[in-house]
Amino acid sequence: MSAPSLDPVLSRIDSDISAATERLLELLRIPSISTDPAYKGDCETAADWLVADLASIGVNASKRPTPGHPMVVGHAGPKGEGVPHVLFYGHYDVQPVDPLNLWDKPPFAPELQETPKGTVIRGRGSSDDKGQLMTFVEACRAWKAIHGELPCRITFFFEGEEESGSPSLVPYMKENADELKADIALICDTGLFGEETPAIVTMLRGLLGEELTVKAASKDLHSGMYGGIAMNPIRALSNVIAQLHDETGRITVPGFYDGVPELSDELKAQWAGLGFDASHFLGEVGLSVPAGEDSVTPLEMIWSRPTCEVNGIWGGYTGEGFKTVLPAEAHAKISFRLVGQQDPLAIRESFRAYVRSLLPADVEVEFKGHGASQAGQMETSDPAFEKARAALSDEWPQPAAFVGCGGSIPIAGHFQKILDMNAMLIGFGKDDDQLHSPNEKYDLNSFHKGIRSWARVLDALSR
Amino acid sequence: MSAPSLDPVLSRIDSDISAATERLLELLRIPSISTDPAYKGDCETAADWLVADLASIGVNASKRPTPGHPMVVGHAGPKGEGVPHVLFYGHYDVQPVDPLNLWDKPPFAPELQETPKGTVIRGRGSSDDKGQLMTFVEACRAWKAIHGELPCRITFFFEGEEESGSPSLVPYMKENADELKADIALICDTGLFGEETPAIVTMLRGLLGEELTVKAASKDLHSGMYGGIAMNPIRALSNVIAQLHDETGRITVPGFYDGVPELSDELKAQWAGLGFDASHFLGEVGLSVPAGEDSVTPLEMIWSRPTCEVNGIWGGYTGEGFKTVLPAEAHAKISFRLVGQQDPLAIRESFRAYVRSLLPADVEVEFKGHGASQAGQMETSDPAFEKARAALSDEWPQPAAFVGCGGSIPIAGHFQKILDMNAMLIGFGKDDDQLHSPNEKYDLNSFHKGIRSWARVLDALSR
Repeated sequence: MSAPSLDPVLSRIDSDISAATERLLELLRIPSISTDPAYKGDCETAADWLVADLASIGVNASKRPTPGHPMVVGHAGPKGEGVPHVLFYGHYDVQPVDPLNLWDKPPFAPELQETPKGTVIRGRGSSDDKGQLMTFVEACRAWKAIHGELPCRITFFFEGEEESGSPSLVPYMKENADELKADIALICDTGLFGEETPAIVTMLRGLLGEELTVKAASKDLHSGMYGGIAMNPIRALSNVIAQLHDETGRITVPGFYDGVPELSDELKAQWAGLGFDASHFLGEVGLSVPAGEDSVTPLEMIWSRPTCEVNGIWGGYTGEGFKTVLPAEAHAKISFRLVGQQDPLAIRESFRAYVRSLLPADVEVEFKGHGASQAGQMETSDPAFEKARAALSDEWPQPAAFVGCGGSIPIAGHFQKILDMNAMLIGFGKDDDQLHSPNEKYDLNSFHKGIRSWARVLDALSR
Repeated sequence: MSAPSLDPVLSRIDSDISAATERLLELLRIPSISTDPAYKGDCETAADWLVADLASIGVNASKRPTPGHPMVVGHAGPKGEGVPHVLFYGHYDVQPVDPLNLWDKPPFAPELQETPKGTVIRGRGSSDDKGQLMTFVEACRAWKAIHGELPCRITFFFEGEEESGSPSLVPYMKENADELKADIALICDTGLFGEETPAIVTMLRGLLGEELTVKAASKDLHSGMYGGIAMNPIRALSNVIAQLHDETGRITVPGFYDGVPELSDELKAQWAGLGFDASHFLGEVGLSVPAGEDSVTPLEMIWSRPTCEVNGIWGGYTGEGFKTVLPAEAHAKISFRLVGQQDPLAIRESFRAYVRSLLPADVEVEFKGHGASQAGQMETSDPAFEKARAALSDEWPQPAAFVGCGGSIPIAGHFQKILDMNAMLIGFGKDDDQLHSPNEKYDLNSFHKGIRSWARVLDALSR
């Protein structure tokens, strides 16, 4: 099935896999946690590393300043009328590592580990997203090594703020639209459908993040003196959270479901055919019962339905022992995954008004917004999708599937809206990669076959 | 009204007040936080300081080891048939100081500060309980200086674990009952009723502390991948907390109100006569509406009704920025104030069963108990109560009142039950002392008139 120009590239990838892994470990050692200002210098270091690595394969790359962490942008490959032009996007920043005590090894001392399921690359960012980003770079390195040139024109576009809401991304894309415009965007920040089944994500959820500070008394109080008579903000906050879902699992924010599409019968049938095993999916993490809306299937819960989750809560005394304090404040971080035409800004407004309506006398709330992105739907009629599906199917034991994705990758929508480009999400992560959790890993097999997959996709798209 | 032997003692107290304040500041500099193992050595230091200070006024005192922090026990004064014998109890340990950033000055660098309401002694423990404890010691010092002897036989009994549930107290009292037994126990760990009105507490609430760990998935999850389908333990915990009170403010734990007495009409009338200003009480801390049961008066809420308060809550990501984690666990510290014949151990059992019944599928809970003490009712027919009331009324502008107390001082019940002694709670703290909160203070006036009050009470009880 492979073209003659492709086979030597695949061989080169196989023979270079150890060196490629070493390069990835080098990048993983840089603790580029974007959300924590203490790691600002490390984010710069990671961007510098990528500029240098791209330069080593002939890409004209540079760091581009933003009000936050820098972008890395580079250009390479043949130009001219009729030469396909792809943009590749990835992000070099990573999630925080707490709770640190749950890591078996230091999160930024990555290493290869043998596990019952095969060799894994262990460390923060191995899967999300440094390992995935490097699959594409390594594919380009192999093409360049074998053919002296890339198979098509490529723009590299790496971000350093994806894990902290991408505050600089939209302004940067708007200001640099001419430079970034290509025929299609390739994004590597998603997963396989199964061990043997690659996936192209065609449906992405949006994300709305809100941080609440619920305030009652003007200072912390002694619960012996004020307990009972003074409103407790933890109780007020818990009451709010308890009312965000009704007894059927539906989210109660007024107007929340406006713009949530019904799945087509065709897609329902396709998804039913995938044989998703909810018991296995939940069982892997110690659970057994789907906790979402009563009326939808488990696959819909994770791919096509909106959600509301509390990602963090804190207030009062949380140390060792006991302190009978009645705190002045309580806090929560709450996020919504959005689908279809749900409007994140309208929901933010409705959510804030709703929370205020649920608070008792003497309780006030302050909100802080953390990102707001709409859901995305890819334009699968673009021939690039069928080309890529075929290329991926050549590499993996099972044919590639068009799937939904619970996560939010706002960048896909931005390419559509700001740059009028289609975006294709291909990735090689696995469900047990422990993204955003302690002991994050990326299968060496994901990395190796991921690189081979991109070589095949680039070959297919360049024809 | 004063006896001839009393007047020179009161004069001595007045002339010695600067030196007495300096001694208190010395004690306040010792960070004897009992709940935090890091301060174990400081608790020993505070006990040593007290032993030395008692020795300086001729008390035969020593540190007594326990499995936790030591007791300080000392004896002094005339013995013999017909000589009254009082025991004085106070505690030298203090509350933790977090959130540290809300302190205007370091909590263990105490100092005198001028405020619009007069001079205050600022620092952790100034009011709870080191400053109060020292009012009694300073009264004894003045008696000793003037008369060469105390007016009655006195046993000093200081504890170092009051702020962490007093785990060693009951065993110690049982093992040392003979040594500790006296005619009556005097306890200085309560407050004035108002600026000008001293109080003897005759009704105390008990305390039950519970720590919950609510567990769902076996590890932290990515809310993009598992949101919606996986149960969120913060949501489960919030649901539990939201259901602990009904819409009228009543606590819903089954059997919780068993043993809660109705107030007598007489006491209701006496309390109504106190003219308690709930608006002012709440207004001082930025609140306006009593948050307790709809059907009771504000004074009943803080003195005679049981309560349930969340003292701390935490789970998920609580740092800067945002992390779309779906945590494996969520935690809360919850305490109950108990009254009348409510049984703390029966309520603990009922509470745990009730919480379990409120949890959804796949969610488990672990409990850790933090102290369980029954409420107390003092035996006010003991003539000592009228003697003390008269003595306090001589010192203060307004006559002393018999009052309830929202706080839990289990020691009073222990004296009754273990040593068959009556206990009298007299203290000089004020509502704005910020007990258990940042910027704790004790009015210099409380300290000074507190010392004078004890001199008067000792004089009255010795007759």
